[in-house]
Amino acid sequence: MLKGKDLIDPKDLSLEEYEEIFKLAEDMMENREKYSEIAKGKILATLFFEPSTRTRLSFESAMLRLGGGVLGFSEAASSSAAKGESLGDTIKVVSAYGDIIAMRHPKEGSAYLASKFSKYPVINAGDGGHQHPTQTLTDLLTIKRKLGRLTNLRIGICGDLKFGRTVHSLIKALARYEGNSFVMISPKELDIPMYIKEELDRIGNVEYIETTSLEEHIEDLDILYMTRIQRERFADKEEYERLKDSYILTVDKLENAKEDMIILHPLPRVNEIDYHVDEDKRAAYFDQAEYGIYARMALIALILGLVSDNGAKCEKSNKEVIVNKEVKCNNKNCITNAETQPFKRIYKIEGEEFYRCGYCDKAIL
Amino acid sequence: MLKGKDLIDPKDLSLEEYEEIFKLAEDMMENREKYSEIAKGKILATLFFEPSTRTRLSFESAMLRLGGGVLGFSEAASSSAAKGESLGDTIKVVSAYGDIIAMRHPKEGSAYLASKFSKYPVINAGDGGHQHPTQTLTDLLTIKRKLGRLTNLRIGICGDLKFGRTVHSLIKALARYEGNSFVMISPKELDIPMYIKEELDRIGNVEYIETTSLEEHIEDLDILYMTRIQRERFADKEEYERLKDSYILTVDKLENAKEDMIILHPLPRVNEIDYHVDEDKRAAYFDQAEYGIYARMALIALILGLVSDNGAKCEKSNKEVIVNKEVKCNNKNCITNAETQPFKRIYKIEGEEFYRCGYCDKAIL
Amino acid sequence: MLKGKDLIDPKDLSLEEYEEIFKLAEDMMENREKYSEIAKGKILATLFFEPSTRTRLSFESAMLRLGGGVLGFSEAASSSAAKGESLGDTIKVVSAYGDIIAMRHPKEGSAYLASKFSKYPVINAGDGGHQHPTQTLTDLLTIKRKLGRLTNLRIGICGDLKFGRTVHSLIKALARYEGNSFVMISPKELDIPMYIKEELDRIGNVEYIETTSLEEHIEDLDILYMTRIQRERFADKEEYERLKDSYILTVDKLENAKEDMIILHPLPRVNEIDYHVDEDKRAAYFDQAEYGIYARMALIALILGLVSDNGAKCEKSNKEVIVNKEVKCNNKNCITNAETQPFKRIYKIEGEEFYRCGYCDKAIL
Repeated sequence: MLKGKDLIDPKDLSLEEYEEIFKLAEDMMENREKYSEIAKGKILATLFFEPSTRTRLSFESAMLRLGGGVLGFSEAASSSAAKGESLGDTIKVVSAYGDIIAMRHPKEGSAYLASKFSKYPVINAGDGGHQHPTQTLTDLLTIKRKLGRLTNLRIGICGDLKFGRTVHSLIKALARYEGNSFVMISPKELDIPMYIKEELDRIGNVEYIETTSLEEHIEDLDILYMTRIQRERFADKEEYERLKDSYILTVDKLENAKEDMIILHPLPRVNEIDYHVDEDKRAAYFDQAEYGIYARMALIALILGLVSDNGAKCEKSNKEVIVNKEVKCNNKNCITNAETQPFKRIYKIEGEEFYRCGYCDKAIL
Repeated sequence: MLKGKDLIDPKDLSLEEYEEIFKLAEDMMENREKYSEIAKGKILATLFFEPSTRTRLSFESAMLRLGGGVLGFSEAASSSAAKGESLGDTIKVVSAYGDIIAMRHPKEGSAYLASKFSKYPVINAGDGGHQHPTQTLTDLLTIKRKLGRLTNLRIGICGDLKFGRTVHSLIKALARYEGNSFVMISPKELDIPMYIKEELDRIGNVEYIETTSLEEHIEDLDILYMTRIQRERFADKEEYERLKDSYILTVDKLENAKEDMIILHPLPRVNEIDYHVDEDKRAAYFDQAEYGIYARMALIALILGLVSDNGAKCEKSNKEVIVNKEVKCNNKNCITNAETQPFKRIYKIEGEEFYRCGYCDKAIL
Repeated sequence: MLKGKDLIDPKDLSLEEYEEIFKLAEDMMENREKYSEIAKGKILATLFFEPSTRTRLSFESAMLRLGGGVLGFSEAASSSAAKGESLGDTIKVVSAYGDIIAMRHPKEGSAYLASKFSKYPVINAGDGGHQHPTQTLTDLLTIKRKLGRLTNLRIGICGDLKFGRTVHSLIKALARYEGNSFVMISPKELDIPMYIKEELDRIGNVEYIETTSLEEHIEDLDILYMTRIQRERFADKEEYERLKDSYILTVDKLENAKEDMIILHPLPRVNEIDYHVDEDKRAAYFDQAEYGIYARMALIALILGLVSDNGAKCEKSNKEVIVNKEVKCNNKNCITNAETQPFKRIYKIEGEEFYRCGYCDKAIL
């Protein structure tokens, strides 16, 4: 059941719970009036320790459309953190200001830490390069809405597959559904990390291919998910110059694409989708941004218990062993290396030989 | 009819539409309770790409007083714009967060561009040095409220007439009403630009005089609109020192003024109105600031269709020929020179020999 | 009666008025639903000329929980102040945006000045190093809630007693109640200022001792109020190093403390309360932060007249003589030395031989 849950990692939700969110979100799209007062008297606290205007406004719009109130901050510069206060203390105090929290923080594992200290449910709005579950939720909702299903899809993901957090999350999420296969389209320098492929292999029955050519495979795709390639990611700048246009989507490249293929992008887009593509009916990225509001409305409504729950069964955790150990995480950007406050570090053994940090999920070497 | 309209330029509204706004605003002043829930469930998005606390808070107060919700941002520093996203894309996404947009942006023509991409009505809260129509609306409402009419007035405008956007807009707005005449009071260095005078001449029957002396003409005025003279505007700083006190309003200068003259100022004022003048009953500038909230309340209520419209007739555009041409605008601060996104540029021929940029209205040379 | 009052200084409220606030705040804690709509249609304007996220969010949470709206700004950098506008003018304009103001400003006396220019009631949310009455209100409410009384208490105050505004305010507030005594625990460098002791002497029957040892006196205390000692306050850094641990509260030091002693801290805490103390049932500092919301809810509700007043009698001012004089205040950080606007300066003679500045309360030498 979603009521009272935190959402830190997309894996926190079972497929049944996702289905419940999608159903409610779509009902909210059709019947906006019906839900315009259900959060009356409730407050969403948007605690953004680094700015992300798009995500923050999406959450705020969601809460206001439910008739609730919003408060928060959008950067930590002059806050107590600068005075040496621990994130745990900050969360203990500010979580009391709201009934539900949406938190964005530059350190990995920070959202999990917040959920341990917060009085009220926490939604991770992005913790460093780690997770951004409501982006994934939005992507899935968009696919569901546009194509009517989340199974038996051939999904092309194009661009920077190495550094794209959104991409990794989406692949892992879609791999939970039956019959999905992936076409990973990128320059060699930015190909999909080994650990993602290993995870797909571990799940089994998830077909994927890797290619450098968008044109060669576009005709097979039900979904084309575009991401931006940044010059900074290339050691060899000439290589970037040589390659960059191959990963830009233009109208002509759509010639052989399926009629009902959908084109997604997490936005902002710079030049990786040409503006003329916007007029093609397959371009779904602006609807995608708007659906994000409904995804968040449904999530908030269910977590706060504002609608009758259908009793969707929860996800059984795949974390086999939880060990409390004072072992140091190697990730410099993990919250456990930022906090001066001593607390228990939870490590997971997932059937792997090594431990993982219970906050940022990186392997402990 | 105002419902669903954008307000980009004061000329977008007919005199009938202005009258409708004034009537509603005055009813709102008298009967605040009556309107306190009409915007329930609606959201105003304040998209301020440069800060302007006064204007933003006035809009937010207006929406809250109507029972609506507000969200937004007040500077663009860390936003997607910094990542290279076009304004058009930004507007497409963020406009979905609200039901009505109030936008402030440093580039001229940006509000018009936003209205082309936005799903919902856009109110221009200031686009560079170009337009700020709700300021003009507020000024007109104040005059209407205090003097009971907008016709047959002798309006003195004092201070910086060269660079004052607010002043140009007010003159053009008041020139649409019958029987109004202007006394333009300024140092020679800051006198009213030629193109404003030409526009008045073109309208015909609008009398105006130019003078450097406030004292000589104050006794004729129904309205005295004060503006600030900045030292920076003078090439010759000694000239500034010599002149500056002549354009400061003090109590003694009011000796010969009409009893029912009103003194206006867009605020903030620094020293151009002496503080002792505040106690004079003719000082209307603080009421003017407060009326701004009601002007915006009425405007929002009518654009969102929250009150029954009296079917005020729209303004017929005086733009005779619309030509789509890829001609470059010379204005460095025009949004068309900032956007990398290709789009059609709309040029107006107004019975002048030259083209004007359809976004910032400056002449194309 | 609280309706329509400003709250600039904790002394503005009588003990009866405090009692009324406490009673209402505790009812609000028990019956949150009952009050969730009483401020409908009302607006709180949070005017924070310097940021203080914690205080601002506490006020905003309070207003939203009462069903009211909030707007405001949280730093003055790009505001009109930068353009040379006086605080008085700013307040005249922005006070019209709300029905009640909470103001934070870096200059002492600024809140008092604001109350003179504001159309609506002003709550001082901190004026420089001068007053922060809602912090004191929160501290008193916490003591009332946890110990059931504000009389016959032995209050230990530990840490920086020299520079702690919160501490001075709390001592003066508690000294108004019968039977209270103080144990002032600090290093010699940071002991309680003479003028506080003189004030206690003047009140009479207020016992206090000064000591450098927390351990020696903890067993007598009903309340232990901890504050942070900053290295910067010490001329001799070695002295700081030598001393610092003596003023840190650890679990072992609690061994002899009373079972029902409460531990308070205005937060943020850095290291002056060890994290293990958090688990002790006497640790009340996080509840204290939460009670701050209810203190503000009750205060706002009473000032706006949203609940029936019990007619608590007001405080009779102890300011015997009010003299309007154009005498310069020596305090560089007083608002009277920042404003270019001429206005009357109000000076108080309190039975002392010297004058005090009517804004910042510092003695005029």
